[in-house]
Amino acid sequence: MKITRPTLLIDYKKCAGNIALMAEKAREHHLIFRPHFKTHQSEEIGKLFRNFGVDKITVSSVQMAKFFARKGWNDITIAFPVNILEIDDINQLASSIRLHLLVESVDAICFLSQNLRRQVGIFIKVDVGYHRTGIDVSNLLSLRNVIQSINANSPLKLEGFLTHAGHTYHQHNVESVKAVHQDAIHKLLELKQQFLPEHPGIIISYGDTPSCSICDDFDGIDEIRPGNFLFYDCQQLKIGSCTPDDLALAVACPIVALHPERNQAIIYGGAVHLSKDSFMDDSKVKFGYLAIPSNKGWNILPANNYVTALSQEHGILQLDSLVLVNLKIGDIVYVLPAHSCLAMDLLRKFKFI
Amino acid sequence: MKITRPTLLIDYKKCAGNIALMAEKAREHHLIFRPHFKTHQSEEIGKLFRNFGVDKITVSSVQMAKFFARKGWNDITIAFPVNILEIDDINQLASSIRLHLLVESVDAICFLSQNLRRQVGIFIKVDVGYHRTGIDVSNLLSLRNVIQSINANSPLKLEGFLTHAGHTYHQHNVESVKAVHQDAIHKLLELKQQFLPEHPGIIISYGDTPSCSICDDFDGIDEIRPGNFLFYDCQQLKIGSCTPDDLALAVACPIVALHPERNQAIIYGGAVHLSKDSFMDDSKVKFGYLAIPSNKGWNILPANNYVTALSQEHGILQLDSLVLVNLKIGDIVYVLPAHSCLAMDLLRKFKFI
Repeated sequence: MKITRPTLLIDYKKCAGNIALMAEKAREHHLIFRPHFKTHQSEEIGKLFRNFGVDKITVSSVQMAKFFARKGWNDITIAFPVNILEIDDINQLASSIRLHLLVESVDAICFLSQNLRRQVGIFIKVDVGYHRTGIDVSNLLSLRNVIQSINANSPLKLEGFLTHAGHTYHQHNVESVKAVHQDAIHKLLELKQQFLPEHPGIIISYGDTPSCSICDDFDGIDEIRPGNFLFYDCQQLKIGSCTPDDLALAVACPIVALHPERNQAIIYGGAVHLSKDSFMDDSKVKFGYLAIPSNKGWNILPANNYVTALSQEHGILQLDSLVLVNLKIGDIVYVLPAHSCLAMDLLRKFKFI
Repeated sequence: MKITRPTLLIDYKKCAGNIALMAEKAREHHLIFRPHFKTHQSEEIGKLFRNFGVDKITVSSVQMAKFFARKGWNDITIAFPVNILEIDDINQLASSIRLHLLVESVDAICFLSQNLRRQVGIFIKVDVGYHRTGIDVSNLLSLRNVIQSINANSPLKLEGFLTHAGHTYHQHNVESVKAVHQDAIHKLLELKQQFLPEHPGIIISYGDTPSCSICDDFDGIDEIRPGNFLFYDCQQLKIGSCTPDDLALAVACPIVALHPERNQAIIYGGAVHLSKDSFMDDSKVKFGYLAIPSNKGWNILPANNYVTALSQEHGILQLDSLVLVNLKIGDIVYVLPAHSCLAMDLLRKFKFI
């Protein structure tokens, strides 16, 4: 494999292993496994999920839903507050696949009820503490108003409540992720018990990568939608969602300059390849850990070797002098990015290794 | 113009005005104007530069050079430490255009001298204080070594010294940009005086957007390569490179949810549209200012209205309650991104307004 410029590499075995493990966990807990395809946005990786029995997926935009519908996926949740301006594409999708939309306001419901031409499944987005979006899970008045407006209108079918406990991403250890998760599923169970008698069949859709990777109690949950878990990344590693061995995505980058006087090297690999997303480690902002190619994939370097800054095309590596001394221009180093979803979005093309 | 999802808008008049002003400044100071095309990466905007007499350009990768060479540009500097792994593409380029490469080590020179099949112009990358890359401008020994290795080898033609005083980006006011600039051009003038007698005809290539926008003393400089100035952005505004009226690029985003209880709204417009780049303002990390569409383009909202967080597709707006009260889902707001180069790289397609 000849690499001449920043190249996305996916370790097939690790990636398939990560999927197998999550699929098995969903089965064990009797959960619908509806993985989030925004992480990879790839037809080929989509096919890999098929091998593990996946036939329901999550995406984060109408455009992504259109892409995967064209590739034969016919049960798709767009886990993003419905963008009413894309109603034409939504109607087109609804005529060809089983489509599920997210709403969190009566205004959205009213618009959909007047403009949808086919029946569409509706999830109400609830907020269990992340405070990004959704109706607060304790705001029963608002929830009742939204549900009422759904039931009054025929093209909309209430399917349940959906949440993303994204505040797990702000945690730095397994115990605090578990605490966030327990709080979230407790609230969701109460919510379900509140509305199930009047609305039999409603489900709870849940699941970010940290919760789904770390936790084992899914009482009251019906469906999980993790995405990042198939690659993981440095952010997940710092949260405690995975081990270094689970990291399945790297960006191979050429060394273009060496600066031993400040223990740095420059790679061709910048913000347009890795994104500007970062993580905190040892009180430093880092944009990725580093690895060197090996026969079996890669060997991760100690944490004092990392991407310390990024500009558009440049990556600046801070290196242990023992590592630096063995590098020369034209060598390839692997960056394990802070956030694999964004690196994948930027590079798109990849090679399995 | 019907906008249904995140859409890059470029204010033609402002953009052309920014180019006109910089072209005029270069003329006034008898500088070669070699704008950096990494900012836009666009054939159409390239053509706009032609109207202002530009026929020499800068890019930051071999791939970008190939793209613009195909579009008829035949004098291109790749202002990035030469990536020797792309030698095949470099040779192909060198056979069809006037190509200028950047080197900063004897190793790179040796490789090029053995592998280049055509004569190529060589700039030595010098570091005037940014400390990203390049040979320290005061390290005359290293500079002499590199120059010697160039002269010993025929396909390489020494053209001069090139620098990027990127530490202007770390400044927060016009005075400190001027101080960085004065220090840089002073060092460059000394460097030129040192080497000019032995190497008549060598030039100094300089120029980041803050220096070129703010400063008026280019003594000893022969060429400028600003890029961002044609759009500017919030980062440049905070540095003092431009006024709000000069901002020429915005991303139109649909409102998908409102959260008046915390003075927030959610847009369809996230890290995959705007990048995760940010700027500090009023002690807060911000990802963009906001504007509302107007007949003449847009009206910028006060600085207490901004993008406060981004995830993959979501943007979270912090808003003045008086602004928020007038918004509804399906409305369009304009984001003036932190860093226009990265937003342009992500979205690529644009509409002139």
